[in-house]
Amino acid sequence: MNKVYQPKRSDWAEVLKRPTQTVEDIESIVQDIFKDVQQNGDKAVFKYTSKFDKVTLDSMQVTEKEISNAAALVSTPLKEAISLAKSNIESFHTAQQTRKVSIITTTGVRCWQEKRAIEKVGLYIPGGTAPLFSSILMLAVPANIAGCKEIVLCTPPDQEGNINPVILYTASLCGVTKIFKVGGIQAIAAMTFGTETVPTVYKIFGPGNQFVTVAKQIATKYGVAIDMPAGPSELLVVADDSAHASFVASDLLSQAEHGKDSQVILVSTSKELIDKVEQEIEKQLPLLPRKDIAATAIDNSKLIYVENDEIALALINEYGPEHFIVCVDNEDFYIDNIVNAGSVFIGNYTPESAGDYASGTNHTLPTNGYAKQYSGVNLDSYLKSMTFQKITKEGIQNIGEAIELMAEAEGLQAHKNAVTLRLDSLNNK
Amino acid sequence: MNKVYQPKRSDWAEVLKRPTQTVEDIESIVQDIFKDVQQNGDKAVFKYTSKFDKVTLDSMQVTEKEISNAAALVSTPLKEAISLAKSNIESFHTAQQTRKVSIITTTGVRCWQEKRAIEKVGLYIPGGTAPLFSSILMLAVPANIAGCKEIVLCTPPDQEGNINPVILYTASLCGVTKIFKVGGIQAIAAMTFGTETVPTVYKIFGPGNQFVTVAKQIATKYGVAIDMPAGPSELLVVADDSAHASFVASDLLSQAEHGKDSQVILVSTSKELIDKVEQEIEKQLPLLPRKDIAATAIDNSKLIYVENDEIALALINEYGPEHFIVCVDNEDFYIDNIVNAGSVFIGNYTPESAGDYASGTNHTLPTNGYAKQYSGVNLDSYLKSMTFQKITKEGIQNIGEAIELMAEAEGLQAHKNAVTLRLDSLNNK
Repeated sequence: MNKVYQPKRSDWAEVLKRPTQTVEDIESIVQDIFKDVQQNGDKAVFKYTSKFDKVTLDSMQVTEKEISNAAALVSTPLKEAISLAKSNIESFHTAQQTRKVSIITTTGVRCWQEKRAIEKVGLYIPGGTAPLFSSILMLAVPANIAGCKEIVLCTPPDQEGNINPVILYTASLCGVTKIFKVGGIQAIAAMTFGTETVPTVYKIFGPGNQFVTVAKQIATKYGVAIDMPAGPSELLVVADDSAHASFVASDLLSQAEHGKDSQVILVSTSKELIDKVEQEIEKQLPLLPRKDIAATAIDNSKLIYVENDEIALALINEYGPEHFIVCVDNEDFYIDNIVNAGSVFIGNYTPESAGDYASGTNHTLPTNGYAKQYSGVNLDSYLKSMTFQKITKEGIQNIGEAIELMAEAEGLQAHKNAVTLRLDSLNNK
Repeated sequence: MNKVYQPKRSDWAEVLKRPTQTVEDIESIVQDIFKDVQQNGDKAVFKYTSKFDKVTLDSMQVTEKEISNAAALVSTPLKEAISLAKSNIESFHTAQQTRKVSIITTTGVRCWQEKRAIEKVGLYIPGGTAPLFSSILMLAVPANIAGCKEIVLCTPPDQEGNINPVILYTASLCGVTKIFKVGGIQAIAAMTFGTETVPTVYKIFGPGNQFVTVAKQIATKYGVAIDMPAGPSELLVVADDSAHASFVASDLLSQAEHGKDSQVILVSTSKELIDKVEQEIEKQLPLLPRKDIAATAIDNSKLIYVENDEIALALINEYGPEHFIVCVDNEDFYIDNIVNAGSVFIGNYTPESAGDYASGTNHTLPTNGYAKQYSGVNLDSYLKSMTFQKITKEGIQNIGEAIELMAEAEGLQAHKNAVTLRLDSLNNK
């Protein structure tokens, strides 16, 4: 672990530097697979599934029978846990619904804003050793609340051609309409172009490795929207002597186990706490099953001592953490003034893993400093805001001249004429 | 004009096809300029200004004096028109402010969502013969309501090194914090990387030609967000015999004068109206100063006859028009059921140019079918939604076990441990 004491403002960028990723060489691989899937549809998808997932499939779509079989394989306690998480996520995302905004801007001119669901969305859920069913909760529950009509899920099959039962159970529970055994770049390509089997979607959500991340970026070139650009997961904790060092260490480690490129930062106004957390990490780390991964991430982590809360806050806003834990006496200072963060966890009994699973907030959050300009996934991620206006005869008489003048000044005579014709018709009556 | 009668569903994609754009060859030009600006900052920017805008500048930033001089050059009636438009845009975007969403999902678990402004935004305003000051109103007014701290505007200088006074007047009126005489690709690059003079911004807004459009797309690779991907402007009108053919024609023409690649579509359940609108276009078109541009766009336009409103609606939702004018008797059918459109204009006295300038709605809207997944610019475009959670001792006892089970099932032991440590500390008391 790297301890940094009172870094100079001019060194912040270096201290806060994230593990870098190179995407240039991945791009050409992604482009090739995209072109193949665009041209050859299912055939290409089957080919890449065979190549990358080491299984030859007869059909991609998960059947009703597979789904109902899966439910029997999930333990009752886990089902209850998923049910609790789903209920909390549902409550919080339902509360995010907004009303229609309608006002009269000038007499006779009514403008309103309404949100309507994106009709077709695609969710990508990575494969690998652990089934990331929690991401299905986070992505499918708000899609359903928003009213998306088609909710497609792609996830890679194992070498027997199966999907983990918890994935199938959760997808079915959360109202996913179609599940496909397709992973990686070919999944993103299939949802972008559509194939004989996989429908085109308008927006793609979900986590993934570097290949999936680049594929989602490339997909935007073909007119598909994505939830947000992605990078390695990260956590920043601000803590003072009111924090429990063992809790802080456990939070830092829970982030560190995500991947070797995960980033973990502790900012503190207490040198004592920094030392205690360091000791706790050394104590807890060897006990973890994923200790090799966590150790690498911890090696790159920073424990930063700063003199006061103002400096801490400025440094944190400069960094823009995905996850931000606040364990300090004057927590309101940070709550009120944090500007760049994905999700904020407050107090000694709010571990980051609560938000990952069950508190109700979404765990799909902006990494890599994107908290400066992107929101995490929320109900609005599945909606588009449309505007409407209806102008009466009186209304166009009230604002018509202003439009004529402005259109004229912009050299757009036909824009002016559309108003002039209407005004003339009213004046001639 | 192309009249299409009752196109088959299988032909819709062809009938509704938009003018295509190729970006591949532009990309390398953009990449080169981006690299140059990234490496050489101001020096590179000056070089491209000299090359593309044909003027050698000593300094890029518009001075206070230039701004105050500009105000004197704008006529009082135009100032009043701008003031009216600004007031309406302000009212409508202020009405879009949302409250903090806060709920208790489980006893002891409070989750809330708050929106905070993107701190630094960049607005791009194209140059050319006409000063597009209306786009400044549309982009700077909501930025100010949102509370963005830095609002940077880039726009190309003329060959004398000046910016049109109406641009300067409007920018100053709308609270733009810094104005730079920089245009094109180099402007987008400067706001992406920052130079000695131009600050880095977190999100770039605004219209532009193909080069600017591709530059904005490339900017997203370097971590900058953009308002939305762009394409040529477009308008779809649905009208029946209750519509005034001359008004409809004037609206179609006001869209057609934007550019040769603008797309204009009329959908109607009345063949009579289609014929009348065609005649009106032939009458109005020759009188327009931009008749050459409009004529080309009109050549590519479609007048589509369909049998009933249901088919019309399905076709319109398939197209997803940027601007959608509804001039029919049963307007509620379209208002209630339109899903994919940027902005909707209702009734005979609501020309599209009203929304372009002064009704209060935003004119920065999704083109190219992007209305299927993107919102037009609105107040939220300048805000990020952040989530917060605070869990009490009781709260973690209520949801802790569910988190432990789910983390375990996902193979993330450290995530589980962060909860277990806390639960243990409470049970041992």
